[in-house]
Amino acid sequence: MRSCSASRSKGVRQRTMCGIFGITGHGEASNLTYLGLHALQHRGQESAGIVSSDGHILRAHRQMGLVADIFTAPVIEGLPGEAAIGHVRYSTAGGSQLKNAQPLFVAYAGGQFSIAHNGNIVNAAEIKASLEAEGALFQSDADTEVVMHLLARSKQPTFEAKLVEALRKVEGAYSILLLTEDKLIAVRDPHGFRPLVLGKMKEGAYVVASETTALDLIEAEVIREMEPGELVVIENGVLRASMPFKPAPRLGRCIFEHVYFAKPDSVLFGSSVYEVRKRLGMQLAREQPAPDADLVIAVPDSGVPAAIGFSQTSGIPYDVGLIRSHYVGRTFIEPQQSIRHFGVKLKLSAVRSVLKGKRVVVVDDSIVRGTTSRKIVKMLKAAGAVSVHLRISSPPTQWPCYYGIDTPSRTELIAASHSTEEIAKYVTADSLGYLSLEGLGTAVEDPKRNTYCTACFSGQYLTEKLSRDSDVAKLSA
Amino acid sequence: MRSCSASRSKGVRQRTMCGIFGITGHGEASNLTYLGLHALQHRGQESAGIVSSDGHILRAHRQMGLVADIFTAPVIEGLPGEAAIGHVRYSTAGGSQLKNAQPLFVAYAGGQFSIAHNGNIVNAAEIKASLEAEGALFQSDADTEVVMHLLARSKQPTFEAKLVEALRKVEGAYSILLLTEDKLIAVRDPHGFRPLVLGKMKEGAYVVASETTALDLIEAEVIREMEPGELVVIENGVLRASMPFKPAPRLGRCIFEHVYFAKPDSVLFGSSVYEVRKRLGMQLAREQPAPDADLVIAVPDSGVPAAIGFSQTSGIPYDVGLIRSHYVGRTFIEPQQSIRHFGVKLKLSAVRSVLKGKRVVVVDDSIVRGTTSRKIVKMLKAAGAVSVHLRISSPPTQWPCYYGIDTPSRTELIAASHSTEEIAKYVTADSLGYLSLEGLGTAVEDPKRNTYCTACFSGQYLTEKLSRDSDVAKLSA
Amino acid sequence: MRSCSASRSKGVRQRTMCGIFGITGHGEASNLTYLGLHALQHRGQESAGIVSSDGHILRAHRQMGLVADIFTAPVIEGLPGEAAIGHVRYSTAGGSQLKNAQPLFVAYAGGQFSIAHNGNIVNAAEIKASLEAEGALFQSDADTEVVMHLLARSKQPTFEAKLVEALRKVEGAYSILLLTEDKLIAVRDPHGFRPLVLGKMKEGAYVVASETTALDLIEAEVIREMEPGELVVIENGVLRASMPFKPAPRLGRCIFEHVYFAKPDSVLFGSSVYEVRKRLGMQLAREQPAPDADLVIAVPDSGVPAAIGFSQTSGIPYDVGLIRSHYVGRTFIEPQQSIRHFGVKLKLSAVRSVLKGKRVVVVDDSIVRGTTSRKIVKMLKAAGAVSVHLRISSPPTQWPCYYGIDTPSRTELIAASHSTEEIAKYVTADSLGYLSLEGLGTAVEDPKRNTYCTACFSGQYLTEKLSRDSDVAKLSA
Amino acid sequence: MRSCSASRSKGVRQRTMCGIFGITGHGEASNLTYLGLHALQHRGQESAGIVSSDGHILRAHRQMGLVADIFTAPVIEGLPGEAAIGHVRYSTAGGSQLKNAQPLFVAYAGGQFSIAHNGNIVNAAEIKASLEAEGALFQSDADTEVVMHLLARSKQPTFEAKLVEALRKVEGAYSILLLTEDKLIAVRDPHGFRPLVLGKMKEGAYVVASETTALDLIEAEVIREMEPGELVVIENGVLRASMPFKPAPRLGRCIFEHVYFAKPDSVLFGSSVYEVRKRLGMQLAREQPAPDADLVIAVPDSGVPAAIGFSQTSGIPYDVGLIRSHYVGRTFIEPQQSIRHFGVKLKLSAVRSVLKGKRVVVVDDSIVRGTTSRKIVKMLKAAGAVSVHLRISSPPTQWPCYYGIDTPSRTELIAASHSTEEIAKYVTADSLGYLSLEGLGTAVEDPKRNTYCTACFSGQYLTEKLSRDSDVAKLSA
Repeated sequence: MRSCSASRSKGVRQRTMCGIFGITGHGEASNLTYLGLHALQHRGQESAGIVSSDGHILRAHRQMGLVADIFTAPVIEGLPGEAAIGHVRYSTAGGSQLKNAQPLFVAYAGGQFSIAHNGNIVNAAEIKASLEAEGALFQSDADTEVVMHLLARSKQPTFEAKLVEALRKVEGAYSILLLTEDKLIAVRDPHGFRPLVLGKMKEGAYVVASETTALDLIEAEVIREMEPGELVVIENGVLRASMPFKPAPRLGRCIFEHVYFAKPDSVLFGSSVYEVRKRLGMQLAREQPAPDADLVIAVPDSGVPAAIGFSQTSGIPYDVGLIRSHYVGRTFIEPQQSIRHFGVKLKLSAVRSVLKGKRVVVVDDSIVRGTTSRKIVKMLKAAGAVSVHLRISSPPTQWPCYYGIDTPSRTELIAASHSTEEIAKYVTADSLGYLSLEGLGTAVEDPKRNTYCTACFSGQYLTEKLSRDSDVAKLSA
Repeated sequence: MRSCSASRSKGVRQRTMCGIFGITGHGEASNLTYLGLHALQHRGQESAGIVSSDGHILRAHRQMGLVADIFTAPVIEGLPGEAAIGHVRYSTAGGSQLKNAQPLFVAYAGGQFSIAHNGNIVNAAEIKASLEAEGALFQSDADTEVVMHLLARSKQPTFEAKLVEALRKVEGAYSILLLTEDKLIAVRDPHGFRPLVLGKMKEGAYVVASETTALDLIEAEVIREMEPGELVVIENGVLRASMPFKPAPRLGRCIFEHVYFAKPDSVLFGSSVYEVRKRLGMQLAREQPAPDADLVIAVPDSGVPAAIGFSQTSGIPYDVGLIRSHYVGRTFIEPQQSIRHFGVKLKLSAVRSVLKGKRVVVVDDSIVRGTTSRKIVKMLKAAGAVSVHLRISSPPTQWPCYYGIDTPSRTELIAASHSTEEIAKYVTADSLGYLSLEGLGTAVEDPKRNTYCTACFSGQYLTEKLSRDSDVAKLSA
Repeated sequence: MRSCSASRSKGVRQRTMCGIFGITGHGEASNLTYLGLHALQHRGQESAGIVSSDGHILRAHRQMGLVADIFTAPVIEGLPGEAAIGHVRYSTAGGSQLKNAQPLFVAYAGGQFSIAHNGNIVNAAEIKASLEAEGALFQSDADTEVVMHLLARSKQPTFEAKLVEALRKVEGAYSILLLTEDKLIAVRDPHGFRPLVLGKMKEGAYVVASETTALDLIEAEVIREMEPGELVVIENGVLRASMPFKPAPRLGRCIFEHVYFAKPDSVLFGSSVYEVRKRLGMQLAREQPAPDADLVIAVPDSGVPAAIGFSQTSGIPYDVGLIRSHYVGRTFIEPQQSIRHFGVKLKLSAVRSVLKGKRVVVVDDSIVRGTTSRKIVKMLKAAGAVSVHLRISSPPTQWPCYYGIDTPSRTELIAASHSTEEIAKYVTADSLGYLSLEGLGTAVEDPKRNTYCTACFSGQYLTEKLSRDSDVAKLSA
Repeated sequence: MRSCSASRSKGVRQRTMCGIFGITGHGEASNLTYLGLHALQHRGQESAGIVSSDGHILRAHRQMGLVADIFTAPVIEGLPGEAAIGHVRYSTAGGSQLKNAQPLFVAYAGGQFSIAHNGNIVNAAEIKASLEAEGALFQSDADTEVVMHLLARSKQPTFEAKLVEALRKVEGAYSILLLTEDKLIAVRDPHGFRPLVLGKMKEGAYVVASETTALDLIEAEVIREMEPGELVVIENGVLRASMPFKPAPRLGRCIFEHVYFAKPDSVLFGSSVYEVRKRLGMQLAREQPAPDADLVIAVPDSGVPAAIGFSQTSGIPYDVGLIRSHYVGRTFIEPQQSIRHFGVKLKLSAVRSVLKGKRVVVVDDSIVRGTTSRKIVKMLKAAGAVSVHLRISSPPTQWPCYYGIDTPSRTELIAASHSTEEIAKYVTADSLGYLSLEGLGTAVEDPKRNTYCTACFSGQYLTEKLSRDSDVAKLSA
């Protein structure tokens, strides 16, 4: 579920997928932030930025492109100091602009501060309208900017108190890092939509990141996941945690992080992403068996763990029927006009010798518009598969996400308007089976399904604002 | 007087040299703005930007570098619409940052607007402090940003009324262009510090530019110079002019535009820049003759008209003793570390055959730190000149400019602390003569010297804020 | 076995890994060559080039970097014509220079021609010395250039006859494409060291490529693999094949293409690369079992098929214990100085939940210096593996390749000087098992081992020149 | 006379304008070469290159663009050694290719050598044909490459002897620098068409350059101009000079270097370029007076000295009527499609206040196609000049140069087919006057006109090959 779209009607901010990383107390803060963002690159490949603080001055570098291309040695050298925050970002092509790259960075009455945000604030449009009515100027289209304005306008005495006041006014998904001259602050919204994890390096530096994989890379110890609604301030080497927000009626941890978005070696919301994905495949094998199939293959890389799980439970051998190219990252983002129709083929190639004459179960994580699935099924058949049984390790994606994952509008989601049989026919699969919502709950060890947000599958939006159908309709327009 | 510096103490915005251009009513608005900025490139070589409006959406491109390198065909194509404003900018190396490149561009309650500013607002620091106290966020270090905030906060009913209210609160030098979805607005401050000229193309499009040379290039007719304190709104092909500000006690047209900054083919404040410079040289020949000299040469290119004037009045033949290279523009901005000491030599070479055995008058427009003059005198003597008589076509530069020309702080201005004799000795000239303030007034046809600002020579700052010594001391700190 | 090195003593040409692609008879020849090179990118990531012919003029574009970054739309447009050849190349950092990028391109008495070469000519040094003695000038360090000189000096009447005469003088590995104004020529050396495959597009255009995966991408049909010693000329839409060279005493198809180098979806030397790799793993499981292990994992991506084969034969479950990042391609080639020690960690991350408390079999294709294997074993143990059994799906790599694969000199090959036990100890594995030469022969269906070159494992070099130890010693020096 | 064209029929090499620089015996050889090329940038703005030798290895960097943009600090660092040669080059747009950038650089039997050439070899096509017949390969279109082949094929025992044998076979214009591992060699052809000057730095390093201005910049002393037909070898700090070639029947120093091409502060062929140009203007004033004119202006910058000379002799005051922009260098080379018609206006602007109501003499160095002159005359009249008297400080340009200056073919030279009256009418001048050939001879102190080549004005080509009309006709075809 890589492709995405965003409603960009006036006032409603675009949605984006992002990764954030922060560190304080280390002489190579910006270099380690660079490494951390590298590990989080899968969360956003469009732009990246780092803001560092040397205790007095904040310095920023933000650019369109990949982390490894942007942060050359001279750029890193231009970001001195013992604290830094960083951000990687992906959004729809139309909204791709440098002005929206994060971390955002401003001066206000109290000095300078910078902010890096993963998530989406659902009442940003209303707040923005009222701020503008009071004369606020907006430099970006990011919903994040409303938090900066609310903070700067707060009459609270401290930066931290201003921030809390600001965040109490916003609703939605936010894992946020803030950097001032002397503080690193991390906040996770009360629903806990997006992940955020605390770590510590042997040398004593504190680290905060979207996923544990970033901590692993720099050899930081995971302390713990931040609590939903928790605010952490790290200053002068001391970490203070508090719970300044009203708890949400229930948790809303994003189930899609487990299904597709997070890196499989991360531990997220207390569970190994890899293990969850494998369990999704195991459950899928039970719910949607394909008894006559000769082999199970994955749509690489995200479908691999579920395919292995499907194979182990079903007893049908796992094999590699599709090879993923290592060199498409950039072309995908900026394809040559003339070869656009090669899209999937540039990324995936079929292994004829594996597929020829075989009845194949192919496991993928989700179906968005159906066009990619259709191309994959056709590619498998062209390579000799006699039948293709498509198995999806999540329920039908029927609703857009307003909490930080880039999904198309409802009209583009094939499952919003088509039955499973119709979708099977469209993608030319011999059979199609989705995992049930119940099975999904079981796999993430949330059998009552009341700690995860499943809105993209169920339409049950958890925030007050979006719990009304009218809101969703308006946002989807 | 190319080199410069700016006090960048907190709160006081950096000063810059700039050129601005705007057009409305032409299908190739951004392409013509590109050409206009090209003609104004001498006013700022560090960054350039264009914002265009297609009637609904504003689009921006701002970048570090030269106009001809930045605005390639694809960039121009990305700036559609019939109206556009542009900006070229120069500031000290330290303050060179993309975030300060103009036109600035924001969203506010009424939509989008963009601003391009030439000048310097002297009470920006106080205003910024009070805006920040009310929660305003600042994205750049530009003094221009305070105007945007004041405008957005105004309760006046129209954009134009908001703008007037905002500008009534600021003091200093401003020739400003603003672009909204449907209007192009131009304003010149009541002192008339910086130039701004109105023109019209044969096809009917209105043009506004810092200098007439930009109008000449695109073959627009000059309508007239804008009046000090005038505000012009161009909307739907109709130009409305008004005088909404309290008149200044006296005019303060920048005399240094004539001495050095403007392009010689421009007509400025009613006088030909070239003719003024030539008259400066004529007057200089009367005040500071060099009767025994064999020839008069110029420090090219800015010294050429005054040298020709000096020659014509004195009867001493004019010749070319220094050749200027065409290929240094960029190196000067970003010199190779290892060859920095070649600075002046990369730019100028001496013509031995002209200089050998000669007593030479060399005419330059001004002396800032004295280091360049010293190198030039030494270069002339190394090429065989037996004596070098340095003549300066303006009075000693003793005070920093706070109205938009980048001059060093007082401590760096050699004439602020040294007598003419001492300077002559430092630069190793056989004699040194400056033009008098009276002579300067005569040359610009302002014999009472009450329509031009001469603060850089006289220390007489014209704004209320800077008329007090304490202000200057504070700003210079 | 990605890392490499080359003896670059004077006279001996550097060795490189390369991929080649050619097409004739298609209006978008250079665009399809771009796609073909994209599919062959795994064969060389350092530089790429395309030369096209419009029937009269040859045009070239060669550049350091990745195919997708180099061949933008304007570059492709600058390469018009219905015929084109292309090349991707990898060599050691020291030899990375634009002048060595291919296709090479010259003018000679008969017009212009261009050449793209995969392989290595072992007697290039001697030929070059004698050509230089006759006054030849060399522009590159490529062994390929001797072929161009020999061709140009031939007195044979036709280009084809000149080429045959030239190639009869060289010894070694060469799959070569040549482009003249009106012909596309393909040659494969008599040993058949490197692959080369013929194909045809539906529209009638002929295609030649290193691997079938390039034909699959552009939807060309595979006609057949070119025969060892075969020469094919395609002109005016007609393909003529001939066998103008003395057959080699025996075939020498590169076994390492199957072990590591080729893309798994390709069919090579008559066998599916993927199936061969899986059989290598199956045989390995028989020869080097790890009976107490809990799971089998691969070093991705090249170790995956063998690991699946090992799992299927041994009955030990296959799982994913190492995740490969998609974003390291470029960093690997040009790493940041300061983070070089993160090398393997930037590329691979361990899945703790899979590994924790487990006895793990990890399957890789080969061990070169041992340093990467050591890091991987340590990474697996740090992630919780209680024991690590390293299994290699090929015999110990003890000899350098002089036929076109970049391997280090003998002194750097750990297996050249260490026993398996010593290597196991160095890489900190609990056990280490290599596949036997016999098992390798079985897996590639060459049980007598007389159709594949196994020199890197056996030291049995097949060319006259290198069959003498003294040659190898000299080349290795 | 900036614009140019070249016959590029097969076999005849393209002609180019170039500058060369070499140094040996200095630890910063490549940095000083960079500075020297910077001073020679006026001789070629299209590509630049430096090859350095550290005594063992030659290293090259060649690139399209300006010297200051190409040779950044890291590039210079990559060119170590105490000897270096460099080259700047300009050719017609069509022939602009990296492969033609110099210095050329090859390996041959004796090692490596590099060559930088200013001039044009008129029998290159014949030599190339016979070399190709012997199997030589050509990498570039440069006539220079034949010298390299001849040298490499020579059986003479030493590099120097090989070079002499090679050069004895070529005819035409060549000032050449060669660099081997341990020698710097400079040669000037027997006619002495192109300049070449020897110098020495205080530290002892020897320097060779096209013009003295390059020596002045790096503060090297001029030793002397090299003699026509002289060969100089500098090795181990010792300079050996010899005269190994048959003297030419007469000298053929390029008069156009004085008229337009060289930098005015250089001393060339024993005369100051600036003084020669001024004398051209003085003689022009005598031959082609404009008695009623009010002022004399120049087409900057090349027309300035002659205009001053014209003014001094005629007594008509000199003034500045055209201002040259400093920022067009690059645009001229690569203009935006859409603004091409702005060409001259982007480069020159007219000073209305100087021109208005005046009868103007405008002095230029030459007329090529007439299109630029026409635009300038129109621009002057548009700015208010009541009459424009165009005076050209050289005779009508009627013949192409085959000795290294880029001039268009005869068919494009307006004076080849039009009378002075016709040209005056075409360029819309009120009168037009050229300098006579006799006057030209007087100004360069060659009254018998037998030491300068004046072929571009007289059609008298000095080389055997081109003294026959049939050759010229063929070359011009």
